[in-house]
Amino acid sequence: MRFGHFDDERREYVIDRPDTPLPWINYLGTEAYFGIISNTAGGYSFYRDARLRRLTRYRYNNAPFDLGGRYLYLRDAASGEFWSPTWQPTQTELDEYECRHGLSYTQISSAYRDIKARVTYFVPLGETLEVWRLRLTNDRAAAAELSVFSSVEFCLWDAQDDATNFQRNFSTGQVEVVDGVIYHKTEYRERRDHFAYFACSEPLAGFDTSREAFLGPYRSWDRPIAVERGSSADSVAHGWQPHGSHHVRITLQPGETREIGFVLGYWENPKDAKFDPPGSQTVNKRTVRPVIERWLTQDAADLGFAQLRENWDTLLGGLQVETPDGDTNRMVNIWNAYQNMVTFNMSRSTSFYESGIGRGMGFRDSNQDLLGFVHMIPERARERILDIAATQLATGGAYHQYQPLTKRGNNDIGSGFNDDPLWLILGVAAYLKETGDVSILDAAVPYDNDPGSEQPLYDHLQRSLRYTLDRLGPHGLPLIGRADWNDCLNLNCFSDTPGEPFQTTENATGGVAESVFIAGQFVLAARELAAISSLVGKPGQEYLDAAEKMTGTIAEHGWDGAWFRRAYDFHGNVVGSASNDEGQIFIEPQGICVMGGVGVEDGTAARALASVRERLATPHGIILQQPAYSSYRLELGEISSYPPGYKENAGIFCHTNPWLMIAEAIVGNGDGAFDYYKRINPSAREAISEVHRCEPYVYAQMIAGRDAPTHGEAKNSWLTGTAAWNYAAITQWILGIRPSLTGLRISPAIPADWPGFTAVRRFRGATYRITVQRGDRSLTVDGAVADPDDVLPLAPAGATVEVILTIP
Amino acid sequence: MRFGHFDDERREYVIDRPDTPLPWINYLGTEAYFGIISNTAGGYSFYRDARLRRLTRYRYNNAPFDLGGRYLYLRDAASGEFWSPTWQPTQTELDEYECRHGLSYTQISSAYRDIKARVTYFVPLGETLEVWRLRLTNDRAAAAELSVFSSVEFCLWDAQDDATNFQRNFSTGQVEVVDGVIYHKTEYRERRDHFAYFACSEPLAGFDTSREAFLGPYRSWDRPIAVERGSSADSVAHGWQPHGSHHVRITLQPGETREIGFVLGYWENPKDAKFDPPGSQTVNKRTVRPVIERWLTQDAADLGFAQLRENWDTLLGGLQVETPDGDTNRMVNIWNAYQNMVTFNMSRSTSFYESGIGRGMGFRDSNQDLLGFVHMIPERARERILDIAATQLATGGAYHQYQPLTKRGNNDIGSGFNDDPLWLILGVAAYLKETGDVSILDAAVPYDNDPGSEQPLYDHLQRSLRYTLDRLGPHGLPLIGRADWNDCLNLNCFSDTPGEPFQTTENATGGVAESVFIAGQFVLAARELAAISSLVGKPGQEYLDAAEKMTGTIAEHGWDGAWFRRAYDFHGNVVGSASNDEGQIFIEPQGICVMGGVGVEDGTAARALASVRERLATPHGIILQQPAYSSYRLELGEISSYPPGYKENAGIFCHTNPWLMIAEAIVGNGDGAFDYYKRINPSAREAISEVHRCEPYVYAQMIAGRDAPTHGEAKNSWLTGTAAWNYAAITQWILGIRPSLTGLRISPAIPADWPGFTAVRRFRGATYRITVQRGDRSLTVDGAVADPDDVLPLAPAGATVEVILTIP
Repeated sequence: MRFGHFDDERREYVIDRPDTPLPWINYLGTEAYFGIISNTAGGYSFYRDARLRRLTRYRYNNAPFDLGGRYLYLRDAASGEFWSPTWQPTQTELDEYECRHGLSYTQISSAYRDIKARVTYFVPLGETLEVWRLRLTNDRAAAAELSVFSSVEFCLWDAQDDATNFQRNFSTGQVEVVDGVIYHKTEYRERRDHFAYFACSEPLAGFDTSREAFLGPYRSWDRPIAVERGSSADSVAHGWQPHGSHHVRITLQPGETREIGFVLGYWENPKDAKFDPPGSQTVNKRTVRPVIERWLTQDAADLGFAQLRENWDTLLGGLQVETPDGDTNRMVNIWNAYQNMVTFNMSRSTSFYESGIGRGMGFRDSNQDLLGFVHMIPERARERILDIAATQLATGGAYHQYQPLTKRGNNDIGSGFNDDPLWLILGVAAYLKETGDVSILDAAVPYDNDPGSEQPLYDHLQRSLRYTLDRLGPHGLPLIGRADWNDCLNLNCFSDTPGEPFQTTENATGGVAESVFIAGQFVLAARELAAISSLVGKPGQEYLDAAEKMTGTIAEHGWDGAWFRRAYDFHGNVVGSASNDEGQIFIEPQGICVMGGVGVEDGTAARALASVRERLATPHGIILQQPAYSSYRLELGEISSYPPGYKENAGIFCHTNPWLMIAEAIVGNGDGAFDYYKRINPSAREAISEVHRCEPYVYAQMIAGRDAPTHGEAKNSWLTGTAAWNYAAITQWILGIRPSLTGLRISPAIPADWPGFTAVRRFRGATYRITVQRGDRSLTVDGAVADPDDVLPLAPAGATVEVILTIP
Repeated sequence: MRFGHFDDERREYVIDRPDTPLPWINYLGTEAYFGIISNTAGGYSFYRDARLRRLTRYRYNNAPFDLGGRYLYLRDAASGEFWSPTWQPTQTELDEYECRHGLSYTQISSAYRDIKARVTYFVPLGETLEVWRLRLTNDRAAAAELSVFSSVEFCLWDAQDDATNFQRNFSTGQVEVVDGVIYHKTEYRERRDHFAYFACSEPLAGFDTSREAFLGPYRSWDRPIAVERGSSADSVAHGWQPHGSHHVRITLQPGETREIGFVLGYWENPKDAKFDPPGSQTVNKRTVRPVIERWLTQDAADLGFAQLRENWDTLLGGLQVETPDGDTNRMVNIWNAYQNMVTFNMSRSTSFYESGIGRGMGFRDSNQDLLGFVHMIPERARERILDIAATQLATGGAYHQYQPLTKRGNNDIGSGFNDDPLWLILGVAAYLKETGDVSILDAAVPYDNDPGSEQPLYDHLQRSLRYTLDRLGPHGLPLIGRADWNDCLNLNCFSDTPGEPFQTTENATGGVAESVFIAGQFVLAARELAAISSLVGKPGQEYLDAAEKMTGTIAEHGWDGAWFRRAYDFHGNVVGSASNDEGQIFIEPQGICVMGGVGVEDGTAARALASVRERLATPHGIILQQPAYSSYRLELGEISSYPPGYKENAGIFCHTNPWLMIAEAIVGNGDGAFDYYKRINPSAREAISEVHRCEPYVYAQMIAGRDAPTHGEAKNSWLTGTAAWNYAAITQWILGIRPSLTGLRISPAIPADWPGFTAVRRFRGATYRITVQRGDRSLTVDGAVADPDDVLPLAPAGATVEVILTIP
């Protein structure tokens, strides 16, 4: 069952009814001012940090599930009837409803009793504000006297404090209302130099800044008393809940269309110019006023909207493909790339599942997220790499998380997730392959942000590898530490106390827990570093030797007979083996070992992949492990804390699925790779939206596995490494448009029934127009025959290169 | 304007309409299982720790303001109409409505279309469960076919995690439904050995354990789809939001009355007997089933309710008074004592303003809270004192807070609030005066909970005093440290960064900030310790000498000419002086210095009190300081962060008001003392409930001062030291029934127009029947003439002593 459809032409997903299975959201903002917005206008906004600079309040997991947002109300003076043109919060049954989620904008249209309304929400480039444009059309035969009410609820900045510290916060709220602009200035009187504002393009009939005055006591947003009454209270909030609402009265003649603009924004003043006049407690509005005035105009709004769309054209222009599969095309060309950018901007901070007050940036996450956006914004990827590397420890180890505002490692979580450092090599490799910018290897980067400790980035990569080699267990496999990629496999933590962190509550010593996953990842990373070394003329043979040695170790102790084992636990017992009663086979080592090339020659790779297909693959994607753990296992930790079929306990943890797609491509099985790709492609799952439930335009972290009563139900959409990895799998491995250190390679592993595909790829400044077709194997570049196994020749910036690859 | 009335006979406050200015709440539970409940059945429950063992979910600051609770729905099968007998959540306009908040129970009655309903909520003594009794009467001429639906939303135990960590929590929820009992067992499969249950006395027509199935998508509790439809979905939650709802169908004949019981509870199993059968994942219900069955019966419920009331009779029997003032009587006899017990149970954890996930127990708070409950439960006071003292540091200093579960000092907040240690002396003094139990002074108590560091409690008291003497500033006044009683006067912290804690962000050294408040408190505490020493035959002269010396220092450097100064700041500038432009006079030093006896002889006390009356007293109570700080002062800190008139910035911070009542009593001004008492007595403010807004039966922390636009509006009711201090002021100082180390003293300072009063006071096992009357000054005890300045002779346990005090 569908709840909408894709409009590929406009790069929009069009939702046809407001009551989607879950709120289907979108993101506003691309730089510093951000927001999430649902298909019924729910959500919130923040400046840079979703916890510390929250502009508007949002209550997660409320009932209705999605309540609170960027609301407008229309009220018909003749009847007194009022409704929301975005369905929420009044839930009036609209005669027409449509939500178009576009790239960094959302447009909700509706009709009710022949009044058409369309609201467009977006954040202009370069600004710290959001524009709402309300377009009203009177389709009646008679004039319509309407009231428009706006509504936002201000958050008192620190979202965690705002939701818990009422004994203080109910006394601190302050606002100003000047020339119809509502200024929310809580704590501006003391240490803050920033405030929020909410403005309207039209003369006001009234306003409210007190939530209770606007809603009325014991009411919610579904029937605000001001709207019911048809007039604002002109309330000024003193403490309690500062709120922003404008009231505009308009008369629309038959057939008339009018636009009303609203601007909600964030502004900072210099610390020494906070007040005007100086010495007063009145907000200095001199610098913000022109900004507000500009963005209230239709011209500015139209231009800003056009520029935003243009910017996305440019970003997405990095790669556009035309394959026989529509789901592939729209995900690669639009939605997967868009999700990659959102994930870059948000990390794991703000979604419908991430409350914005949680954890910092993951060392491991950030390196993997790179894969998805490096071709669109390589300069930001460079910056991110250097930020990440600066949090690395001198041992080569890494803080598992760092704080985006301070860019420092998070001591609470600490270090010891032993796969972390290797991801830095893979992230840097991806950057180098895309850009060829080897200068980054010479960039002086400190350890643990300690001034004076700077070493070239190349040194960081060497230490990353060394970190693994310094920590090998009794089988010669890497020690796992607190966890490897699966944060939930906690082999050195034996937690029996509720609330203890599974990863960091270490209470046993002397364990020998080893990870086959890290072993495979080491082989991959060592080979990458060897290639990088070779590129810049440094010795790399030792890395190849180490990779080969580790490959042998995997063959000896990591191979179970039909698949790669997962680990050895604290006591040296195997995990992920046919000899286990549960958790016999895990997805991760099958993916990463084959990606590292392990077993590709000797056939064990193919054997492992056959086992995955046989034991882990479901129509909804590939399960993380089987059989699910039916009870909690003290020696395994969090993985077994989930009910069977959910999350890491035999859920379809989507992040890992593309590893198997890549692995299938590596062994030359294009059909198998694409089959896996289709199973979790959200667009391909659109038709079963009542099962999948999450947005059909972005990946979710998890789909419930076959052991779950809700098999096929997705959770935690948007902010997941799934986006970057699927993008890499489809573009670089299945379509085979694969950057390498020396240039772009075209090496598809497409389904047998595809006649071919075309693509346009921007690469190191040039544009490659690529055609892949069937026939005898050959390659022509700008008409000249080339070796199909070679990389494409580099072309000057601005050049266009015509590439035709023919494959059997 | 009133929203209800007191029923003194039944010890209830009766609310006549559901839409009180704010939710007016009550507390359930007295031992380990607790809840808050509003007048419309909103609120939540927890076991011991409101953060870590939250049974049901609650969203603070929601809209409607109070949404989520212990809800019941009635549905008429004939019409399909449904309503809430507690008004919320359907907000159906009821024909009759009444909420009776009693002592640890709440009873909400209503009538709608001739169906009468009464719901009684309480927690039986000794149990970890709450009982709901629904009594229905059909007043119609015809039979009524009704459905009853119950509703609670389970919290996934850790309330902070539950409200933020959705990427995990939406996958972990688990329930069982067996024999009509709903078991909420999230995380029971892993490290928890506890679960919640929700049971109903009647055969079920259906049930729901999925919130979405019960409410329906995009709905709230105001119109659950199950209720609207008239049938449950028999849903079993898998992740998302576990919920509990029973559906019962009943037919009531004309005039018939029926009762239905519900039990919501918490249960722990032994770790090795969690599952039944062992090895399964099924909750072992063997031990909990008999408990559930028992409390579903009417007999058990009736008996449990009676026992609860009896228990309160016993507790309140410690002191009952009959004065000419009804507001005084009901506060002393019922509500203030009740609030004291609630504050003892909750500390500052759980109210409508304290979200239950905040801070630990305050060292200072807990010592002061003692004043309010020591006469009711002296054995718990002893335990609390020893807990508190064990967190004291070997320096004599104190952690500012400690965690109730671990009873250890909170390192995040740390130490250095230099008034803290002196409160321990005052707390112990109160305990000794009430009980005479000098054995407590010999109790071996560690420092910082460090085994081996145990010293007699008396040693702790000595070090407390020494701590102050070791930390004197240039004027010889005590250094203030991070803050003194006013946590918001931060003289050593210069914070200009939002979000920094005002108290603990120390960023300047070498300051000399001194506190006149601590000086006064030192004099008081030193004299108390001298008296204690004298009582147990230890030398105490040095304490008297130190008190005298400090008194001289106050006279020299703490006296401003017409009042006591507040402090000297980091740079040695005076705070709370006529020479300041703002903050010229503060309430705290006026109260505490006079309480310590400073200036009582030389008339400065009376002069200071006159200044308070002139400059700080308003009809709504005494303001903390004047003039309010109009802007943020870096050198003063948090106090100036509040808008003028709120909280410590010139709000009426009620905690401090009774100090002035006591001071007035000390200087013999009974009229003045009682005048102040009446101004903030919530019962006396009942008639202006539309201004006061908080509950008229309990004290609030703060009433907005005259600089605030909402002057007279109370905030943060229930959990405040205001309760204990007002109780001490009215009972010990105005009525003058004052325990001392050697016995009970009767020394009233009552209004001139009172002919007298009577009281019954339990004291050290005996009962004193006290009559105070007008006439020539005299005292008779059991008919024998005694010296009215003496303490009453101690009487054997169980004895009744008739006391008649005659005063001019």
